[in-house]
This record gives sequence, C-alpha cells and structure tokens, in this order.
Amino acid sequence: MASNSSSTPDSTRRSERSRRSIYDAAIALVVEIGYPKTTIEGIAARAGVGKQTIYRWWPSKADVLLEAFLDLGEQTARTAAEEHGAVDGQGEPQGQGIPDTGDLAADLKLVLRATVDELRNPAFEAPSRALAAEGVVNEELGRRFVAKLLEPSLQLYVDRLRSAQEAGDVRPEIDPRIALELFVSPLAQRWLQYTGPISYEYTDTLVDYALGGIAPR
Amino acid sequence: MASNSSSTPDSTRRSERSRRSIYDAAIALVVEIGYPKTTIEGIAARAGVGKQTIYRWWPSKADVLLEAFLDLGEQTARTAAEEHGAVDGQGEPQGQGIPDTGDLAADLKLVLRATVDELRNPAFEAPSRALAAEGVVNEELGRRFVAKLLEPSLQLYVDRLRSAQEAGDVRPEIDPRIALELFVSPLAQRWLQYTGPISYEYTDTLVDYALGGIAPR
Repeated sequence: MASNSSSTPDSTRRSERSRRSIYDAAIALVVEIGYPKTTIEGIAARAGVGKQTIYRWWPSKADVLLEAFLDLGEQTARTAAEEHGAVDGQGEPQGQGIPDTGDLAADLKLVLRATVDELRNPAFEAPSRALAAEGVVNEELGRRFVAKLLEPSLQLYVDRLRSAQEAGDVRPEIDPRIALELFVSPLAQRWLQYTGPISYEYTDTLVDYALGGIAPR
Repeated sequence: MASNSSSTPDSTRRSERSRRSIYDAAIALVVEIGYPKTTIEGIAARAGVGKQTIYRWWPSKADVLLEAFLDLGEQTARTAAEEHGAVDGQGEPQGQGIPDTGDLAADLKLVLRATVDELRNPAFEAPSRALAAEGVVNEELGRRFVAKLLEPSLQLYVDRLRSAQEAGDVRPEIDPRIALELFVSPLAQRWLQYTGPISYEYTDTLVDYALGGIAPR
C-alpha cells in the first residue's frame, strides 16, 4: 500500500475516504468497461477526486487496481470468515494461514469449501473475472496479478503441505508447490473456464484424489 | 461446420478458399483487436468477401470464431503429430484418442508433453489466449468454447481413464471426469494465469502425483 504523506487525524480520515472511493471507482470501471478502457482519469472522475491525488499514491492504473483487489480480497475474507472460516480473495486461504489441526484432508477441505463460497460471492466474482481475463492476454499484468494476489495465498498451501511432510502425512519427495495445484487448479479452471460445476462435494473429492491418488493403493 | 450449398467442383474450390480466408481473418482480428471489437463486417473486409457470404454460413461471429478455432486446432494437431504424437488444439489429445499401450502413466505423459509443445506454439498461443480471455468474462461464449473445443478433448481422457479402470490401473470408485483435472487443470492454469513455468518435467510430475497421490502409500 502506498504510504500516506498526510498525518493529522483529519487529513488521514480524508485520505482514507479518498482511497476507498478510488478503489470502488477502479473496481466498478473495470467491471463495466473492462481493463483496457479504464483510465486514471476515468477513475478520478468517478471517485470525485483530482487525478493528481491518484498519481500521488500510485504510479499506474495497474497499481491502483491491484491494490483495490487486495482490499476487496480482505473485505471478502472478512465477510467469509464471519460465516465460515478464514479465507481471502482469488479463492485462496487468508493471511493467518491454513488451519493445522493435524488432519490434512480436513484442513484442506475446509479452506477449499470457503473458497467455493468466495468464488460465488457476486461482489468478488465480476471484478475478479475482469482482472483474470486481462491477465490472460496481458502477460505483464498477469504476472503482477499472480505475484501480488495469487502466489502469496498459494504459499500458505506450501506451508501447510510442508508441515504435513514433517508430520509424515505427505511423502518427503513431493514438491509442495506442485502438489497444491492438484486441488487448487481444477477449482480455478472450473471457475475461469466454466468447465464444470463448483461444489463442496467437488472440492472434497479433489482433496481425496490428490492425497490418495487415483491408482489402486 | 455449416453445409456448403454450392456443389460444382469450381464453386467448391472457391468456397474452400473463401472459408480459409474467413478463418484466417477472424483469428487475426481477434488477436489484434480482441473479441469485443471483432465484427462480421471486419472479418468480411479483411477476408475480401461480402458479409453475406459469412452470414450464409454462420449465424454469428462467435460461430465463425469457434469454427476457425476448431480448424486451427486441427492444423496445429497435424503439425504436432508430424513432430511428436497425436494431439489437437487447446492442449488436449486429438480425435483419434489417447494411446493405450497398457502403461497409463506413460500414455498420459506422452499426451501432456505434446500439449506442452502445442501451448508453446506461437500460431496457437495468441488466438487461444484471446478466446480464453473473452470466455472468462463472457459466460455464454465461455460455455460454447468449452462445449465445442475443450470438452470433446477432455472426454478422450475420460475414455482412457475408463479403460485404465477396466485394466485395474485406476480405482473403480474414481470419477474419471474429475480425475483428469488433477493433471490437465494445473497445466491449464499455469498457461492461462502465468502461475508457473511449463515443461515436460512438470507435466510428468503431475501425472505421477495424480496416480500415486501425495500421501504416503
């Protein structure tokens, strides 16, 4: 997050209000007209701030949007956490990490079920789709999107799988960064490409298949 | 494919030439200006045909593009098959199906390696990304894209996994339509979202993890 150069209580409150308006405007525009047509000028006009206010805090529209998404993820996570468990935007577990109850399958299923809820949250869905779609054809944005929004969440799965390796629940030679894709990527692809329905039963099944394998044991 | 109302050899040749020009124009435009701005008029102008020629064969630009992609997939498959093995567009195995040598892991690895080659083919990549990106934000197009281009290829994995179940190489209670996602979706997500590098070693690893599971056996 860009640092705020003001420091008195009043100007901090004003800044926070401006920041919130800018995030809301950026997300609304990318949903309504798409990433390519969204401009700093457009965001400023819709937020009711001068465009210099935006340029003072962020160097480009990509930066505004990435932060607006981080914020949206946090808001969505807060709502989801109140209802079910701790997760964030982009269908991944939240900052505090994935629970470690000692039951790996149960912990993964819990987080993926919360992700299912999140992917179905209308406040999250349209803006996430708009940014993801742009990332498919805009490699630079796609890579920043991953580095800032997606990879930090995936690393929480890496941590949980490493702890499972220490507990003897995952084979030691397994690469956790690849292993997590066996249950995260199918859900992502169904969501991104409409390749199939999304449900708790589905994500539970992914976890069981990934842990146990599909070959006879 | 729309039926061709002409039937004499000359008009058939002319029609084939027009059809090819229309496919090429449709794919070039969707890469250059994106799906939303691509129009039947634009495709006709670039292909050097009247727009009535297009409307006679296809009801909408989505239909032209889907057929152009099916054709591109076939062309890419032909090239790939000459070099490696039998696969088609969108990173999936080709009409003739997935080889069944009795070694499930080897057969899946072969097909996924060919898919890696295909995803890196520049003639395939830009148009595929353009269509995939539009499918993320345009559910109707996304669903047609899946039904026409992606699902038929995924069904070849279903067939191969069913035959593996008969051979005792996949547990009988496994749902093949979900199981295939353990190795297909990670590759798709890395390609779509730049979440990681794509290599033969990576897809080989996915197959091993999916078959054997990540938990101790």
